[in-house]
Amino acid sequence: MTEPLSDYDKYDALGLAALVRRREASAAELLEAAINRIERLNPRINALTLKLYERARAAIARGLPQGPFAGVPFLLKDLGQMLKGERLATGSRLFADYVPAKDSTLAQRFEAAGLVIAGKSSTPELGCSITTEPAAFGPCRNPWDATRTPGGSSGGAAAAVAAGIVPMAHGGDGGGSIRAPAAWCGLYGMKPSRARNPVGPDLGESLNGFSANHCISRSVRDSAALLDATSGPEPGDPYHVVAAERPFLEEAGRDPAPLRIALSTKSPGGGPVDPEWAAAAEAAARLLADLGHHVEEAAPDYDFEALLAGWRAIVGAILYVQVTSYAEARGIANPLALLEPVNAAWVEEGGRRTGAEYFRAETVQQGVGRRIGAFFARYDILLTPTMAGPPPKLGSLVGDTRDLDGFYRRLFEVSPFTAVFNASGGPAASIPFGLTSAGLPLGVQIGADLGRDGLVFALSGQIERARPWAGLRPPGFS
Amino acid sequence: MTEPLSDYDKYDALGLAALVRRREASAAELLEAAINRIERLNPRINALTLKLYERARAAIARGLPQGPFAGVPFLLKDLGQMLKGERLATGSRLFADYVPAKDSTLAQRFEAAGLVIAGKSSTPELGCSITTEPAAFGPCRNPWDATRTPGGSSGGAAAAVAAGIVPMAHGGDGGGSIRAPAAWCGLYGMKPSRARNPVGPDLGESLNGFSANHCISRSVRDSAALLDATSGPEPGDPYHVVAAERPFLEEAGRDPAPLRIALSTKSPGGGPVDPEWAAAAEAAARLLADLGHHVEEAAPDYDFEALLAGWRAIVGAILYVQVTSYAEARGIANPLALLEPVNAAWVEEGGRRTGAEYFRAETVQQGVGRRIGAFFARYDILLTPTMAGPPPKLGSLVGDTRDLDGFYRRLFEVSPFTAVFNASGGPAASIPFGLTSAGLPLGVQIGADLGRDGLVFALSGQIERARPWAGLRPPGFS
Repeated sequence: MTEPLSDYDKYDALGLAALVRRREASAAELLEAAINRIERLNPRINALTLKLYERARAAIARGLPQGPFAGVPFLLKDLGQMLKGERLATGSRLFADYVPAKDSTLAQRFEAAGLVIAGKSSTPELGCSITTEPAAFGPCRNPWDATRTPGGSSGGAAAAVAAGIVPMAHGGDGGGSIRAPAAWCGLYGMKPSRARNPVGPDLGESLNGFSANHCISRSVRDSAALLDATSGPEPGDPYHVVAAERPFLEEAGRDPAPLRIALSTKSPGGGPVDPEWAAAAEAAARLLADLGHHVEEAAPDYDFEALLAGWRAIVGAILYVQVTSYAEARGIANPLALLEPVNAAWVEEGGRRTGAEYFRAETVQQGVGRRIGAFFARYDILLTPTMAGPPPKLGSLVGDTRDLDGFYRRLFEVSPFTAVFNASGGPAASIPFGLTSAGLPLGVQIGADLGRDGLVFALSGQIERARPWAGLRPPGFS
Repeated sequence: MTEPLSDYDKYDALGLAALVRRREASAAELLEAAINRIERLNPRINALTLKLYERARAAIARGLPQGPFAGVPFLLKDLGQMLKGERLATGSRLFADYVPAKDSTLAQRFEAAGLVIAGKSSTPELGCSITTEPAAFGPCRNPWDATRTPGGSSGGAAAAVAAGIVPMAHGGDGGGSIRAPAAWCGLYGMKPSRARNPVGPDLGESLNGFSANHCISRSVRDSAALLDATSGPEPGDPYHVVAAERPFLEEAGRDPAPLRIALSTKSPGGGPVDPEWAAAAEAAARLLADLGHHVEEAAPDYDFEALLAGWRAIVGAILYVQVTSYAEARGIANPLALLEPVNAAWVEEGGRRTGAEYFRAETVQQGVGRRIGAFFARYDILLTPTMAGPPPKLGSLVGDTRDLDGFYRRLFEVSPFTAVFNASGGPAASIPFGLTSAGLPLGVQIGADLGRDGLVFALSGQIERARPWAGLRPPGFS
């Protein structure tokens, strides 16, 4: 099979959509280009868990909606979004046969925007890790270094975008799961505000409001335009987020007014931060000062350990319900035996939680949010390294262990900067910021107060124009 | 003491504020009128648990904020809102010595609107009943019939407003606690949308989002203008509600465009509905049809028993945390011994709930919200009787019992129409609609989709103009 469009991987999603609109390429050609790259490159990175070629070809044959991304190949994460009739394994042997009977609202909106879902991308089992090494599907590899993790939980998404398979892919972020893999794969990853994107039609919130779904992309404008297309309430939402002042795509193209930016390179957990990752945030701070913003060192004050303990309690109880409900419905007698050991331990712990513990954890979550809100009364943006260091070697973060405490400690040693925005619900993005001395991607995180997604896009766009990263591609994936 | 302003009780709150603005009465005179009525009338209804005369006089002496209610006497409920340095007993012997060290945000906004807090109004213990008969303070009596309950949990507030002590009083509503006493006391009681009014500065939500705070008033315009003054986000909110299209006061004065109104007079729990209460809703439906709206019989489809079970699980777990945390902080060895028997049973049950049960109950809550959202895609308004019958006799709903199941069943037999809006979070109001053959107030409820508070005020105002209730006053309280 020949490459139907030789420079397919040079475009971002809006760029590909423009080709289709100008009839310089057809949706079918773009899909075949994506399929060609999947077949050629995916064996090296193992980013996909499901191929949906025939479904995608049929969608094109039926005629695509005239959305802003009409004809652009896309991947859905194997977690969190239902596609009617297509397996949703959530990276787990337990759910390996689960086929939803309906679409998620967000999946429908992705397709209504014209995106062509060509497959599903890999995730750690139940999405519960910062590395994408599910026993059910095998480890996903980082295109920048195949011995390292692409990150997680949207690791397959990031690996596939970095490898040029799709220009943009769905991701979800309940503790850093969009931002971590974006940072480690040299991509843009923006977690929107809580309630910006829909979570229905059945659920009212995702992971008690910790989690938000959106995408990992190459360009800021793609992320902004996709959120324009997908965001907004749906019937029966339990709550909202303040409406956007203007389209996010417009925000991404305009420099923000001078901002009050707080820089922090210290781990809120007190752990080590790799000097190259700290230096990236410091360099970003200097750039932002040069661009006219007021930058000073400051960090929000909150109880990091309490936040993590509350997150662990809530997520564990929710996993317990998901696992046991599914097992009961399917007549699976011992679902824990089908889970990876550390997840079995987490689910077991979740089953021992009391209602009081759950409520106390919610109170901690919302209390951290109050602290962050007070911080953002003084600053517009918090700037940090996205991660505390480079992507770990495959096998170093997981293992055949039930040591939940140790697993947990390593998780948030590696990613201490991200989870606070899952507690507050505020928007946060990881922005590519050059390479380490070893040639691995660096990322800096900017986060803002709940509802200020437009501000995050505006500042992201300004940084992208000042210090473009479009040429930042892993060697050997052209 | 002579009555400083002889027709004080003939005005609504905005009417009194206009007197002050026009210098026809002073804030001090209004306060003394309120105090006079408290001293004279409260012994008959037992609506207050705390008098704050000196605090109120000092506030006036210091100079009031120039808010829309500057100089208007007001009562804070003895539940849910902190006033720094003033006892917050929550109707309980357990909390009888609790004195908060800070104000709640909403209490601050009440005072910033110019309201003068003259005292605290009675509530059932922990707010957990539809009748206001706390053992700690004795039963509150309905001004329309002193042998009957004014309703609850904002029973003291409704009794005080009906008795003309204040024109408007703070209330909170986690299952019907504004609407029930408003209906049974011949007043207007509007529960705003979830997240419309602030719940901080510490908490992120109230009763897991079931509860909203606002007021019980005589006029629609008072309720609308107060919500204009108090609503809006505060730093660190976990989520928002869609912004109002225009000021609520403006909404209250304009007839809405023709609406799609669903009428239902059947209890969603299948219990009996008093024919006079059903007839009131039917009469309101005819009025609304005459006013040009499209009215048809329809009811949302949801699992009423599951909603109640989930509500009981969540509220129980939260009460358990509140009671045990307070007891631990104060060194109280056996807090349950200080609670009324049925509440002790509820707290005990709450302590036995698992985290999984709590999460499942949240899922039920949000699932009911999805059903209601789908219903409101077809209708603008749901019209029902507010209550299933007249206010019960004092002593008939509570007792020295630990029979939580029986208590619960009676609670929602009497108030089957209200709780669904606590699950969905949508706005709902009880509107006075004449008297029963025995001379007791009737009320009809209108409820709408989350965020449509303006619509509820617009329709309330239209009904108020078409069928005014300002002259509806309990005999013997002039």
